Formats: sequence, structure tokens, C-alpha cells
Amino acid sequence: MYQRILIANRGEIALRIMRACRELGIETVAIYSEADRGANYLDLADEAYCVGPAKPADSYLKIANVISAAEVGNVQALHPGYGFLAENAHFNEICRSCNIDFIGPSPEAMAQLGDKNAARSLARKAKVPVVPGSEGLIENEEEALKFAHDVGFPVIIKAVAGGGGRGMRVAANDLSLKSALQQAKAEAEAAFGNGAVYLEKYIEQPRHVEVQVLADTHGNAVHLWERDCSVQRRHQKLIEESPSLNVTPKSRKAMCEAARRLIIEAKYTNAATVEFIVDKDGNYYFIEVNARIQVEHPVTELISGVDLIKQQILIASGEKLSLSQSDIKCTGAAIECRINAEDPKKNFQPCPGKIERLIAPGGFGVRWESHAHSGYIVPPYYDSMIGKLLVHQPTREEAIATMLRALAELKVDGIKTTASLHQEILSHSAFAEGRIDTTFVERTFGG
Amino acid sequence: MYQRILIANRGEIALRIMRACRELGIETVAIYSEADRGANYLDLADEAYCVGPAKPADSYLKIANVISAAEVGNVQALHPGYGFLAENAHFNEICRSCNIDFIGPSPEAMAQLGDKNAARSLARKAKVPVVPGSEGLIENEEEALKFAHDVGFPVIIKAVAGGGGRGMRVAANDLSLKSALQQAKAEAEAAFGNGAVYLEKYIEQPRHVEVQVLADTHGNAVHLWERDCSVQRRHQKLIEESPSLNVTPKSRKAMCEAARRLIIEAKYTNAATVEFIVDKDGNYYFIEVNARIQVEHPVTELISGVDLIKQQILIASGEKLSLSQSDIKCTGAAIECRINAEDPKKNFQPCPGKIERLIAPGGFGVRWESHAHSGYIVPPYYDSMIGKLLVHQPTREEAIATMLRALAELKVDGIKTTASLHQEILSHSAFAEGRIDTTFVERTFGG
Repeated sequence: MYQRILIANRGEIALRIMRACRELGIETVAIYSEADRGANYLDLADEAYCVGPAKPADSYLKIANVISAAEVGNVQALHPGYGFLAENAHFNEICRSCNIDFIGPSPEAMAQLGDKNAARSLARKAKVPVVPGSEGLIENEEEALKFAHDVGFPVIIKAVAGGGGRGMRVAANDLSLKSALQQAKAEAEAAFGNGAVYLEKYIEQPRHVEVQVLADTHGNAVHLWERDCSVQRRHQKLIEESPSLNVTPKSRKAMCEAARRLIIEAKYTNAATVEFIVDKDGNYYFIEVNARIQVEHPVTELISGVDLIKQQILIASGEKLSLSQSDIKCTGAAIECRINAEDPKKNFQPCPGKIERLIAPGGFGVRWESHAHSGYIVPPYYDSMIGKLLVHQPTREEAIATMLRALAELKVDGIKTTASLHQEILSHSAFAEGRIDTTFVERTFGG
Repeated sequence: MYQRILIANRGEIALRIMRACRELGIETVAIYSEADRGANYLDLADEAYCVGPAKPADSYLKIANVISAAEVGNVQALHPGYGFLAENAHFNEICRSCNIDFIGPSPEAMAQLGDKNAARSLARKAKVPVVPGSEGLIENEEEALKFAHDVGFPVIIKAVAGGGGRGMRVAANDLSLKSALQQAKAEAEAAFGNGAVYLEKYIEQPRHVEVQVLADTHGNAVHLWERDCSVQRRHQKLIEESPSLNVTPKSRKAMCEAARRLIIEAKYTNAATVEFIVDKDGNYYFIEVNARIQVEHPVTELISGVDLIKQQILIASGEKLSLSQSDIKCTGAAIECRINAEDPKKNFQPCPGKIERLIAPGGFGVRWESHAHSGYIVPPYYDSMIGKLLVHQPTREEAIATMLRALAELKVDGIKTTASLHQEILSHSAFAEGRIDTTFVERTFGG
């Protein structure tokens, strides 16, 4: 087992990983940008190194600086968290060449699954249903039109290097397809330095359902059931829950087994999320694999009782999974609300600044994941998420009631947050009845 | 089901009950003393009434004022919490005569179990083992000496009306028994206005193990396993956990069943805790019944998944228990540390005052129960407990690791707390190995 791990991230996920390390008796080395200097959670690390100025490109994304911190910190392994360098196969490879274990998949598995076309081929091989899509990149208008006419409108354009909705466009006819193609390519080029795109049949009223998988280096893999992440705004997840109301017990089981099959087929190790789109008839189609821990992983921890971060560390260090598939139950219902420092009344513009006072909810069934506290200054340079509020109860109805009372208790003085939007969503009859797809928030509360 | 409940308490337990009511869709009426005016948790009630000045005798204990608040607040029921009026059968009776449901046992059951001699007789009737004791009150030295010579020294003197160690003395020989008897009677008279005492065989290296029971008004009763509360200082519980390491699986089951039998025999309804003393050989003896919810009830909630406060409310409103005994599993291990505003370095003297900043721990397996927050002023008039830190993990070893990391995260700036003592206890090999009895803290860390 490792004695010392570098945490190559910031904020709540850095704290989350520190907590797991502490409980495992592993020392931690934290990194921070100049904007995060003095953040309270850094006190919980055994050491902390500055890796550059506030801008992510100059600090958390700066591979040379992160690797230097790992070298100086004398760590045996590195946890990348999510975002930043978490799905950068090049960085992953550099870690390997520096003899630092990357707590995640191998660079090869990451690169293979990071290529969405390769991932689709793999899915077909593992007999996992995929959305009808262009086999390979779309180079020009003609190819795009041909595909759209073959499968029928609407179609969706996606960036090969994409994520978070960037480089993504839906087209309902020839004219919109032509302009959307240009926009998507330009946006992908700007966001990822890679303008390559592909096309898929667009699933209307789509539900986003994803399966958590863990795989060790000894050939064992288990799924930990699914999370429904259909409550999104502009492709950003707002609320995640488990179990999903959008799959029947039968297709749920089949989907979870399909995810596991795919991960085994990919010879993937460590934690992965296999994303599916579920149509209004309950059919599921593979979308992509997220080769990292996800923001919403605690939802799965609540229904399964399994600490996914500890599992990631154990797997990376070469241990065998101590869990077999039949050990992993889905108990009760869990919901997560992402609390962002944004103003819901001003088009969700970010609200960085000082939290004068923070009172976090507690009590039965409540889990609070946050690095923020009274006096914390939310920097303007990063993700606006200041905390994740989670609840776990025997039933979904009780979980919703607990989340509503917890949201009512949450006090964040000094900045605006999205807590009020969550209250509206959770009080809405469509949410209560599970009539939610990824267009629900924008249709109901505006874009 | 009730529409509106009065919460006849303050602080963390008032907040705990409010949370349960909110989740059940029940309105709450809070009460507060002048010292608690403006406390943050009062904002979460639908209404709040001042019941008098700071001193408990003039506010939270003042029956006329509490009843007035209930009448004005137009409630159907009242939850007494713990402490204050929670075990006052007279108050319970007054609630009944005012047509306010008392969320707890009937006044009759409360009075019967509040009388320790009656409770012992009941235990014998229900075939629950009791510590050899004087049958009835000890009136004079001669009776005391006779009892001591019959069962053998050491013996313990206890106040009939007692609790919290007051009016309690251990005697090892004739001489010490004589003086202890006078002291105990005087202390009991001062504390409870009742100097009546009785004697018991004193169990050396005693473990305090208690069983949680729920009983409805339809004759159904279930136990929810046990809590070990052996980590005490001067008869005040510091750390509680479940399951207990001090009982074998066989005697554990027998003890839990005995507790249930006693509660059925007593025709008791609502939540009760049946306290046992367990000797170094694992024999258990009934001590007393606590006819209320207890501070440490969340330990049981974590291992069972059952919300005890909600169950209390449902039972009082006449609902049938929806749980059968076989539904109630004990899953994993849970520990609670009581965080008190006291200075461990100055003989645990209370440290009231302003909490400049409070950062509560969170994350996997952590539950924080507290009404305190950054800026909260701990008043000097009440119990010094400012919060309960709880953890739940698959194993006790993991629970201890999580508690230690959570204690390291807890920051309470401005006042002293007992968090550091908890760190010492939880890091001690005797605690890790479960070699703990009620004398452990004083023996190891001083009185």
C-alpha cells in the first residue's frame, strides 16, 4: 500500500481524496495555485506545494509543475480527481515514466476510451447497444447530410474531444445541420484544440443514465448500479440520483451488466463511469466512458455503502477487489444537488467572492461534501461548485423530503447560490413523478 | 397524523425534532428562553414563543409557560426531547389533561418506570436479570450494613430519584458505607428534593450497554439493538457506539430480547432505552429504563437506518409500527462523540461564549448533529454539549479511522471543546481493542 499520495486537484474533490487517504493511513501532498493559497482544506494535507498562478493553464493544468510537486513531495502515487488533468492520457503516461502510479486507468485504456469512435467500436464488440452514428469523423457537409438522411432527423453533432456540452449541436433539417456543423467544429477547436466531430441520431426526451464500474488489475470487475443525471441545464448536471426511475428493473440489470462487459472488454482498470442515453421507451444506448471518478460519485457511495475513492487507491496499488458483484446491493434512494456559486436570477452568472457565513445542513440521512466554510473566498478562476449536498433515505419520496429540509437549512451568506433552483426542481410535480429528461430544466425553468 | 407539534426543548435536540417534523410535513412551534432568543435554529420552526428568562427553572422547566406556548401555538402534540421535562410524569399528565399528545410513554408507564424499585420488580416479572439489590429503600445504617454483608462488598448506593451520578456512592467496607450513605442521601435531597436511596451489589469494571426499543399503541414492540456507552467521565457519557464489543452474540441477542420483553410487560409505548450493566464476564443485569429519546439515539439510527424521532411521532399519533423485528438489521459500526464546550485542560470547566468560526466535518460516513454555527454564542445556562459527531462504516476499525479524521477537521474557534480528549481516547490501544469499562476514562486520562 502507498505511504504518500499527491492530490493533483483542488476544492471539494481534493478534500474528498484527502479524507480517504487519512482514513487509510496514507500521507497526502496537496497542490495549490496562488488563488487557493491558504485554503483551509490544505491544512489537512501533510504537505502542500504551490504549482503556479491562479489561471488553471498555469497551475493545475501545468504538467511540469504538478510532476515537480510529486517529485519533491516524494509520493508513490497521484490522484487526479476530476477535471484538470484527470483524463489526459499524455499526463498519465508522464506519471508512468516518472514511476508515479496514476490512480486511474492505464494511459492506453484512457486513450482508447477517450476516442469516442474507438469506444463505440469496443461497445459493439461487447454487444452493448450504441446510438446509430456516423462510423468515424464527419469531414464535410455532404457526409453530414448523407448520414442525417440515412437515419432521419433530428441528429446531433458531437466533438471527438468533447465534454460538458462544448462542440455539441442538434440539427432538425438540412439548413440547421449545415450551420450547426460549422459552429460545432469551431467551438470544439476553441475548447479542445481539436475540431473533429461525428454525428449521431438524436434521441428525443433523452434520459442520462450512467453506470459506475470498478475493475482491478487481476481481471475482476463489478458494477455499482446506476445514477440518473437527467436533471441538467445546458448539459451541466444539476441533480443526480440513484436508483433511476427511467429504467425498468429488467433493462436496469441488463444495462449495468453491459457496462461491466464493456469495461472488461476494454481491459480497463480502476473506476469508470459508462454513460448511456435512455429513450422515452426505456431503450438504452451507450454514449461514452468517463475514465475518472465523477463529481456525483457519492450518490453511488450512499446506495452501495462502498467508498469509491478508497477503492480507487486500493486498485491502483495492485490489491484485488474485495467486493464481488453479489455483495453490492442498492439500498434506499440517494440524491445529490450541486450547490454552485451562481445567481439563478441573473442567468446563472458566476458569483465568486467571500462567504461571510456558511451553515451546512446535517442530521439524519444528510451528507455534505464541501471545502467551503465561513470566511472562505470563492475564487473566480475555477468551477463554480462550492459543495455537494447529498441525502440517503429508504425511499425516493423520503429522500426528496430530506433534501428539501436540508436545502432550507443551508445558509450561504455573502454570495448567491443555486440552492433556490434546486428547491424549485425538487418541489416540482414532474420531478416527484420522475417525468424528467435532459430538457426538463430548460423547458420548465428557462435556459 | 399531526399537523402541528410543539418542541419543548432547545439546542441540538430541538433542531433534530424540527428536521423530522419538516420531513413528515408537520409544522413546528418552538420555544426559547431569553438566552436563546435569535438562535439560528428557531428560524426553521413555523412559530417560536419565548417561555421565560435564561434560567431553566424559569423557562424550559416552567410547565405553565410551556403549556401556554402549546395552547397559543395550537398544537396537537408536544415532543419533550431529552432532559428538562422529558421524564416528568406530572407534566406528561398535564399535557393529557390539556388534550395535547405527549410524544412519549403514558404518564402511568413513565411513573412506574421512573420508580427504580417498581422497575426492578417489573424486570423480575419479565425474567430480566437484575443486579442483586436491597428490596426497597434503605432507611438506616443497620439495613445498609446487613445488605452489604449479605451480598458482599463492594456495594453501591443510588438515589431513587437519581440520574447523572448524583446521589450515587460506592462503598468497599463498613466504614466507607456509613459515610457514603449520609453523603448520598444529602446529595439526593439537594439535587432531587428526595433523599431516598437503595443499595445494590457493585459490579466492578462495569460496562454500560443499553438497548433501544420502540413500542406502538397496538401491542407491537421491537428492539433496535444495543449501544455501548462505557466511555464515561464522572457518569457522563462521552462516546457511544454500536454494536458493543462487550457482549457475545448470544448474550447480545438475549439482552435485546429481554429489553423488549420488559417494555411489553410494562405496557410501555413509544421509544425507550433499557439500560444494562455488563460485568467483566459478559453477564448482563437490568439497571433502569430511560423513558425518553436519548442523546445518543443517532448511533442506533446509523446501524439500523430507522429514524427514531419520526417513529416516535408516528407511534404517538396512533400508527402501527411498520417495522417487524426481522426487518431491523444492525449494519456496520457507528460511533458518536459528544462535543462539549468544556476545557479538558482545566478540569472540564464549561467554556460558554462566542464561536467565532465553526467548520464541521463532512464526507463519507459522517453525520453532524448540531445547532451551533459560526457566530453562535454558547449560553452558560444549559448543557455544555454543542454538537454530536457521528460516523458509520462497515467495520469498527474503519469507523474509528473516520472519527479520527473527522475530529481533525472539526474547527471550533473562540471556545474550548472536548474534541482533543476524544482524539486521545480513540487513539488509545485499550479503546481499539475494546478493553473499556465505565472507569476507563478516569483511570487513563484522570478525573
